[in-house]
Amino acid sequence: MIRFDPGDERIQNARTFRVWEGGGEYNVARSLSKVFRCESAIVTALADNQIGRLAEDLMWQGGVDTSQILWRETDGISRKVRNGMYFIERGFGLRPPVGCSDRGNTAVSQLKTGDVDWQKVFGEAGARWFHTGGIFAGLSETTKDVALEAMKKAKESGAIVSYDLNYRASLWSERGGRDAANALNHELLPFADVVFGVENFDASFAAYAEKNFRRAASDIRSKFPDLKVIATTLRNVKSASRHDLSAVCFAGDEVFKANDFADLNVLDRVGSGDAFAAGLIYGLLAGKDVQFSLDCGAANSAFTLTTPGDGSAATLSEIENLSNSKKLDLSR
Amino acid sequence: MIRFDPGDERIQNARTFRVWEGGGEYNVARSLSKVFRCESAIVTALADNQIGRLAEDLMWQGGVDTSQILWRETDGISRKVRNGMYFIERGFGLRPPVGCSDRGNTAVSQLKTGDVDWQKVFGEAGARWFHTGGIFAGLSETTKDVALEAMKKAKESGAIVSYDLNYRASLWSERGGRDAANALNHELLPFADVVFGVENFDASFAAYAEKNFRRAASDIRSKFPDLKVIATTLRNVKSASRHDLSAVCFAGDEVFKANDFADLNVLDRVGSGDAFAAGLIYGLLAGKDVQFSLDCGAANSAFTLTTPGDGSAATLSEIENLSNSKKLDLSR
Amino acid sequence: MIRFDPGDERIQNARTFRVWEGGGEYNVARSLSKVFRCESAIVTALADNQIGRLAEDLMWQGGVDTSQILWRETDGISRKVRNGMYFIERGFGLRPPVGCSDRGNTAVSQLKTGDVDWQKVFGEAGARWFHTGGIFAGLSETTKDVALEAMKKAKESGAIVSYDLNYRASLWSERGGRDAANALNHELLPFADVVFGVENFDASFAAYAEKNFRRAASDIRSKFPDLKVIATTLRNVKSASRHDLSAVCFAGDEVFKANDFADLNVLDRVGSGDAFAAGLIYGLLAGKDVQFSLDCGAANSAFTLTTPGDGSAATLSEIENLSNSKKLDLSR
Amino acid sequence: MIRFDPGDERIQNARTFRVWEGGGEYNVARSLSKVFRCESAIVTALADNQIGRLAEDLMWQGGVDTSQILWRETDGISRKVRNGMYFIERGFGLRPPVGCSDRGNTAVSQLKTGDVDWQKVFGEAGARWFHTGGIFAGLSETTKDVALEAMKKAKESGAIVSYDLNYRASLWSERGGRDAANALNHELLPFADVVFGVENFDASFAAYAEKNFRRAASDIRSKFPDLKVIATTLRNVKSASRHDLSAVCFAGDEVFKANDFADLNVLDRVGSGDAFAAGLIYGLLAGKDVQFSLDCGAANSAFTLTTPGDGSAATLSEIENLSNSKKLDLSR
Amino acid sequence: MIRFDPGDERIQNARTFRVWEGGGEYNVARSLSKVFRCESAIVTALADNQIGRLAEDLMWQGGVDTSQILWRETDGISRKVRNGMYFIERGFGLRPPVGCSDRGNTAVSQLKTGDVDWQKVFGEAGARWFHTGGIFAGLSETTKDVALEAMKKAKESGAIVSYDLNYRASLWSERGGRDAANALNHELLPFADVVFGVENFDASFAAYAEKNFRRAASDIRSKFPDLKVIATTLRNVKSASRHDLSAVCFAGDEVFKANDFADLNVLDRVGSGDAFAAGLIYGLLAGKDVQFSLDCGAANSAFTLTTPGDGSAATLSEIENLSNSKKLDLSR
Amino acid sequence: MIRFDPGDERIQNARTFRVWEGGGEYNVARSLSKVFRCESAIVTALADNQIGRLAEDLMWQGGVDTSQILWRETDGISRKVRNGMYFIERGFGLRPPVGCSDRGNTAVSQLKTGDVDWQKVFGEAGARWFHTGGIFAGLSETTKDVALEAMKKAKESGAIVSYDLNYRASLWSERGGRDAANALNHELLPFADVVFGVENFDASFAAYAEKNFRRAASDIRSKFPDLKVIATTLRNVKSASRHDLSAVCFAGDEVFKANDFADLNVLDRVGSGDAFAAGLIYGLLAGKDVQFSLDCGAANSAFTLTTPGDGSAATLSEIENLSNSKKLDLSR
Repeated sequence: MIRFDPGDERIQNARTFRVWEGGGEYNVARSLSKVFRCESAIVTALADNQIGRLAEDLMWQGGVDTSQILWRETDGISRKVRNGMYFIERGFGLRPPVGCSDRGNTAVSQLKTGDVDWQKVFGEAGARWFHTGGIFAGLSETTKDVALEAMKKAKESGAIVSYDLNYRASLWSERGGRDAANALNHELLPFADVVFGVENFDASFAAYAEKNFRRAASDIRSKFPDLKVIATTLRNVKSASRHDLSAVCFAGDEVFKANDFADLNVLDRVGSGDAFAAGLIYGLLAGKDVQFSLDCGAANSAFTLTTPGDGSAATLSEIENLSNSKKLDLSR
Repeated sequence: MIRFDPGDERIQNARTFRVWEGGGEYNVARSLSKVFRCESAIVTALADNQIGRLAEDLMWQGGVDTSQILWRETDGISRKVRNGMYFIERGFGLRPPVGCSDRGNTAVSQLKTGDVDWQKVFGEAGARWFHTGGIFAGLSETTKDVALEAMKKAKESGAIVSYDLNYRASLWSERGGRDAANALNHELLPFADVVFGVENFDASFAAYAEKNFRRAASDIRSKFPDLKVIATTLRNVKSASRHDLSAVCFAGDEVFKANDFADLNVLDRVGSGDAFAAGLIYGLLAGKDVQFSLDCGAANSAFTLTTPGDGSAATLSEIENLSNSKKLDLSR
Repeated sequence: MIRFDPGDERIQNARTFRVWEGGGEYNVARSLSKVFRCESAIVTALADNQIGRLAEDLMWQGGVDTSQILWRETDGISRKVRNGMYFIERGFGLRPPVGCSDRGNTAVSQLKTGDVDWQKVFGEAGARWFHTGGIFAGLSETTKDVALEAMKKAKESGAIVSYDLNYRASLWSERGGRDAANALNHELLPFADVVFGVENFDASFAAYAEKNFRRAASDIRSKFPDLKVIATTLRNVKSASRHDLSAVCFAGDEVFKANDFADLNVLDRVGSGDAFAAGLIYGLLAGKDVQFSLDCGAANSAFTLTTPGDGSAATLSEIENLSNSKKLDLSR
Repeated sequence: MIRFDPGDERIQNARTFRVWEGGGEYNVARSLSKVFRCESAIVTALADNQIGRLAEDLMWQGGVDTSQILWRETDGISRKVRNGMYFIERGFGLRPPVGCSDRGNTAVSQLKTGDVDWQKVFGEAGARWFHTGGIFAGLSETTKDVALEAMKKAKESGAIVSYDLNYRASLWSERGGRDAANALNHELLPFADVVFGVENFDASFAAYAEKNFRRAASDIRSKFPDLKVIATTLRNVKSASRHDLSAVCFAGDEVFKANDFADLNVLDRVGSGDAFAAGLIYGLLAGKDVQFSLDCGAANSAFTLTTPGDGSAATLSEIENLSNSKKLDLSR
Repeated sequence: MIRFDPGDERIQNARTFRVWEGGGEYNVARSLSKVFRCESAIVTALADNQIGRLAEDLMWQGGVDTSQILWRETDGISRKVRNGMYFIERGFGLRPPVGCSDRGNTAVSQLKTGDVDWQKVFGEAGARWFHTGGIFAGLSETTKDVALEAMKKAKESGAIVSYDLNYRASLWSERGGRDAANALNHELLPFADVVFGVENFDASFAAYAEKNFRRAASDIRSKFPDLKVIATTLRNVKSASRHDLSAVCFAGDEVFKANDFADLNVLDRVGSGDAFAAGLIYGLLAGKDVQFSLDCGAANSAFTLTTPGDGSAATLSEIENLSNSKKLDLSR
Repeated sequence: MIRFDPGDERIQNARTFRVWEGGGEYNVARSLSKVFRCESAIVTALADNQIGRLAEDLMWQGGVDTSQILWRETDGISRKVRNGMYFIERGFGLRPPVGCSDRGNTAVSQLKTGDVDWQKVFGEAGARWFHTGGIFAGLSETTKDVALEAMKKAKESGAIVSYDLNYRASLWSERGGRDAANALNHELLPFADVVFGVENFDASFAAYAEKNFRRAASDIRSKFPDLKVIATTLRNVKSASRHDLSAVCFAGDEVFKANDFADLNVLDRVGSGDAFAAGLIYGLLAGKDVQFSLDCGAANSAFTLTTPGDGSAATLSEIENLSNSKKLDLSR
């Protein structure tokens, strides 16, 4: 999607917008490519107009392979098929970030089973990891099936599958809300190895108690025994400009916890959850241990708060320094 | 609609967009208010989200009364109802202005007869002139009927009705094209007093011949005898940066022609046709003669080419000077 | 007035300025229109040049009715009559906001009794609330009389009158200073129903004691028994970037206190006092109780600190959420 | 003065202004310093507030010595003494540059004889050339006398004196107009060696006839026999974006004409007359012959049309190349 | 290289620069990828610091494969190895584009034979076309040999080799000038199939005569009989803002000429020669005939003049329309 | 040097850079001129191209006399001699400021003894204070000698000499590191009266203990008995956006400590050490006592954190207010 960012103004009074690309699953792919220097690709559909080509231009800059995108012909005015956009202002102090999604009728929401040649993705291209989540799956009745199809194919091919429980109220406002979203997640989780987000767990930074997390994570794994890693960020939103952040994960009956990042200055929080997922995925893909992977995720998430846009602008060495709590001072 | 303008870049490579408000009928209302200092209002529907409120903010700046707007509740992600947007780059030299409309599923395209309280518009508010055209009427099967309804009510109330033959290929691409649009126009023109655009007439600046125009205009009037004024701009697009512009109109069996503006430098051509309509309407509303009104329209149109955005940024005295061919040099 | 804002630079080194409109009494009208969706108008005089028309353009965007403005002819170089401007930098951390007023010889300072047709304002237009204060009244020897004239006419017409004790040292630097300003206030307060600011009271957030406020407010009311509401913000300026804010008011022998907003991040403090007045006026105009109105004012004031420009960019629902201390997190 | 430039927008709709410094006489000094690398200083008065200090910052960048500026204490709101500003938009195509001066009550307009220590200027600092003109002299009744005083002192000291007939209608609108300005010029010209501008001569590029110029210049010299050089630009304003430019001068009974610059693209015409004066002054100061000096002036004037701001951004070698009609193509 | 662009200002007075990536050979690769949708890669060396990574970010956006770049370790302050930069202002009207290269000691100028694994480039990656030219070859004594090495390997692998005679005076200022550059070209041309630029031929648009071109091209081919295509743009620089442009090529004893583009508005001319090369290469690579390929090159070159930056921002369909002289008017 | 500042983005993803001038010793001169209104000049060498002239333009704005600069002819592409640049991003929260110097082969690093006419500097111009430090001296093997030459000449002339121990790891990375830098300092310190920085002392704000400082400073003075003042800032970098700052100095066996500035909001920390030096130098030059001078330095340093760019944008009166701990609130 194209993100419109009014800078330090509010959407309704702005006269200029910066544009970024973003979207839950895409953000993960971008961090993997740009920060962690892994090859990543996005599987989606876009309407073939100038807005779609702007998204392509941004994704090229992001280093994400766009060759698997299905380009849909438009009718010239986006009556049949469109590209998604969202307008988000960053917030400041007691003014929270607020936004407005404009993604009715998007090309991606019209994806249906059979549209994507998964053999090409998992066979020829040899994808080793497949990541999706509740946003894509929740876009429409057909994307739910596409998510299922993809996860099954991924599993069959031997790729690791991760799933983000990400919930957007607006997607479900007229389709059953949180309950329906949970039901969907439960349909898809049997095919996941890694899950981001934990049901029935208070992910606040301040309220964290290991036993609560262990109980909630164990419950999930008892329902979905194939899950190998259950991970989530912990966060306190003190104000739009100040967060506490940490992360925790459950793997092999062990609970791992990242360093705490307290009192972080926040420039733009959007995408910080996706940055966490990317860091953890990177670690696991690179064959690092769980603690390193978790720290990588937490560091990438914290770093993402300091730059505008959804994406992380960190470098791998910065993430490693941050994970190792090395002092970061002006170097020149 | 919100217009996104990438400045001197192309849409697909831009990272920043200026926003303006625009739309054929709206542009006329804005010129009437901002340049000619007449009270004007817009009758439309908008989705009530931050994009709609941005449009409102822009229209307030434009001086157009927004109290007749019907605000539609959204579902949070614009699946049911949206606000229209368009992306246009201005072009430069041999690179023409190109753009991309994103107006599927807009609130205004869902307007249907009975939605608007025309009694309030023409009765209480006492509108003296009603302007619409082929873009609004062509938005959907229902807006066609709304246009008809409105024009009839306007006529009944004694307001003057003008109609712009404006044709957007993208609106008709799957609904019968130019022929269907013409058929629609013919259905509506019986209720118009003033029409902008002339069928079967080559409106090029260079090819203008009075007898051709007289013949074409006479033909139209013979079909729609209530038409009192038939007007059009004449234009040569030498390049995106250079136009020749004039205007001509037929009224009471007489042909009137505006001064020629040759070799105009063009910064942004969008909205210059609407500026012509506004100038002519102003003249007639203000009780001026046809020649003055036509000159006013042509001058406002030419002026609009020199500033960014759809709207005219002229002042009334500048338009009058330009109509009178007064020399315009740096005054300070 | 036009406000020139150098962004993150200092005035004396800037090469670009953003412009906003502002001014104590105007800011109140703008919040009432833009945030609280009440009709509001400004009564003032402007020199009719491009700077004045820029102010008009900004006020249209602000939604304030400009039809009562008296436009003064200029001599082309502003020797006789000008429009006011002020240059303010926002400050940052230990660097305080500083600025420079340029309002000698303004059209508004030349207003004199008889210039304004108050019958039109309070009779035909039917204004229900009239707000003025120490800045307008202190502009010149003649505006003092205009304020008096207006307040009397307002009272006679049944409109509620509010008065802000706002003091600008620069206005009084050669005319008797604080003492003269107080004397003026005392001349005008007999005609006010609501007053913002409290004499002989330390309005610091940290030092607040209800009994001190009760005593100071009671003293004032004993002098001006027509005063129904006496209100003020409470503030600590910890740095240019961090304030504590609250508000308190005295009405019907009762003291009401708003929620405390501690450790607010401040982007631009200018206009936050006016935002308080607007919120409280809105509540009272809308028939809400005093506590609601006070909370409304405090919330609007706090919100105003988070956006650039004098004006509040909040929406009514955001103010209500904030007044109710509802949690504000990223919604999308 | 501070110049506010709205870029490609109009003043009344702009939200951002670039600032430049400018002013007829100052522009000459700036070109001499920045382009021609002569030491130059400005003698003026400024109000000592942040606006004045912004002017100082700009003048330092311009390389003009500010040590002779008289800094006037302000009352905080510019009631007594101000700094001048002007708002000018550049124009485009058929939209001419228009602007608005705001220089009532400026510090410089309050200068009176005796304020400036001319001994310091012409004695200690050893100024070799003194340039003033109709704008400064016309600011007020007292600056007229200051101009007279300065020109006499300059002459006595042996410095060359040049005077620009520059006429600003707005300065004279209530003081006798063009006739009064001419009378003033006639009072001052006896003390000038060089004059820019020619009375009773049509300085249009197209209408130039040597005999007309010779006659007009001879007439002037017969009235003011001390005049050694009488010079003027020749210009056709085809549109705001296209000028023809040349220059002509009369010296020692000979007429010299610069190369013609036809069909120049114009970005910003403001200051191009001053750039001409600076080039010619440079040539004469540097001991070059009249033809070289005139060509220098014309080239600097033409170059100034191609950059934003009043000032010339040329380098001396570029001016020399242009004077010599050397081909200018991309060098890298 | 990183290009610094001061927009409408001059380099020496700018306070803000836009950055682009550029460089003769790179620009060709970028057009092939971005406009013509061919896979392209760049073989070069960059210093591994933030400036190099900025170049990478820009090249990713440009769609050019960066996996063949050799990243050189830096010493932290660029004493040993640097990345190249250039500062160019676009020029306007009579002010020509001027610039300043800063490419001493760059990583690429230190490339030497053996550094690049050409087997990977031509074998594994299977490059079908290799383009280089006089800028790369002229960077240093070692890049000359690298060019030779590469061209030989390319030829052996069956790839087509093109060579641009591009001459930068600054590169040769102390190494023998034009003569030395010609000698180098003659050393390399035996390995080229296609050459851009023609020795001993006046490539001005106005002076074009087919027989002169035929003679010059024939001469070259008689010296380098392997050359299959000899092509060049024809240009008149009327001013920085107005060019005439065409192109001509010699292939199989036939002379082909592109359509003439007269009186083009020029925004930024840098890179227009490279855009010509890219268009012609695309045509030949895609198996089109010579005339189509030449028209493609000329159209891409003309289009590049209308956007900022070195690169072409055209789309393939726009180039095809332009080649076919289809009318380009505002479509929406 | 030219500083490129990507604003709120990272260098590697930026598309626009603001430029500033900077450099350790220069920053001191600029503060002395701009803030403290002393005459200051810079002695350095620059390559005479547009980048060098941009530096000149910035230094003129900074008020630093550039007449002692040695302008070196370039070869057009900076192979032989260049101008230094550095790219620094400001950092935010947990993201530290990072940067990249590009100063290989600069004109200044090629300065050698005999190049500068010190007689002109200390004799004719009568410099009363000479400041240099470890950055300049460490640029190359020849600048070391130039520093020595200059300090000796300064001493002889009676000027006060100050030296900043400033260490840039990148300058010494291949030349012996910190040890070599210390050795150089020890070679130069015998000729210094004032030194900024203290060897073997932990200059952290939190860990400050007077006895430690006294011991370290005494040690230094015992080695270099001519040192009259030994001064340093004390700092805690809590995050890129929050510092604690103070300063301490040793003079005449007494330890002086400035007020503590705790929890400072930091916009841009670069240059804050130089600002400290400038403030202290100003005080001593102006004949103030040590405590005042130290407070002046600390206040200027703290103020510099609040504005972008290396330079301090304070005014003298603001520094004095801050030194005196006067309350700084919005004045208008």
